[in-house]
Amino acid sequence: KFGERAGLKQTATTCNRVADIAHTSVHCYGRPNQTAWLSGAPRNIDTSCLTWEGQQFQGKRAIVEKLSSLPFTKIAHSITAQDHQPTPDCCILSMVVGQLKVDDDPIMGFHQSFILKNINDAWVCTNDTFRLAIHNFG
Amino acid sequence: KFGERAGLKQTATTCNRVADIAHTSVHCYGRPNQTAWLSGAPRNIDTSCLTWEGQQFQGKRAIVEKLSSLPFTKIAHSITAQDHQPTPDCCILSMVVGQLKVDDDPIMGFHQSFILKNINDAWVCTNDTFRLAIHNFG
Repeated sequence: KFGERAGLKQTATTCNRVADIAHTSVHCYGRPNQTAWLSGAPRNIDTSCLTWEGQQFQGKRAIVEKLSSLPFTKIAHSITAQDHQPTPDCCILSMVVGQLKVDDDPIMGFHQSFILKNINDAWVCTNDTFRLAIHNFG
Repeated sequence: KFGERAGLKQTATTCNRVADIAHTSVHCYGRPNQTAWLSGAPRNIDTSCLTWEGQQFQGKRAIVEKLSSLPFTKIAHSITAQDHQPTPDCCILSMVVGQLKVDDDPIMGFHQSFILKNINDAWVCTNDTFRLAIHNFG
């Protein structure tokens, strides 16, 4: 009912389930271990793009390879805010702000934007951008 | 040349100018006064969505009304990081992380995600999500 509540009449019919779908995807990220993070993440396809701390990756293989190579053994997360919008092309734009705790490192903020698109009745992640919240106040 | 550099062959032709276009839009936000922020921002259309600190607005009029009502007289910004990607529907997804100084308030972090779409040879902003970087560590 997200579309209706938000007054997004034009896309309400096709994007009714925006919030449900996006919530599910958000909570698939950042589970307590790396394997779950990868397997639980929305399915990537060969045209999917990931920008990870400014580095570009395209395609399922490259993205999985990058995520598999992240240097940590444990990761815990909490979500501070999440916003979801239907797009004109019936995709879903999500922005997530939260905090991560990786192994024994201090807690860090992060932000992530992703687009979900329905292809052949499955929601895939076509675009994903991730940044740790490191501000240079210098 | 963003698409090519990023190895985004499928969309390279149509999205060659991704970075240029997105950079221009980014720098139109947050100029030193509110009027420039509004007039310089990418053009909104009647289906455009803005989520501002969790509040939903749709349509040019509602968005301009919201932005006009923001309670400050001066705003300065600096951009810490910006990431841009072409989407499968030949839009541009941008995520911007930066800092704001509003009137005499302390500096605050912010993050913003937006989608630009080319309609009738003009780039319009169809989706925009803005959050101040306020983490509750409690």
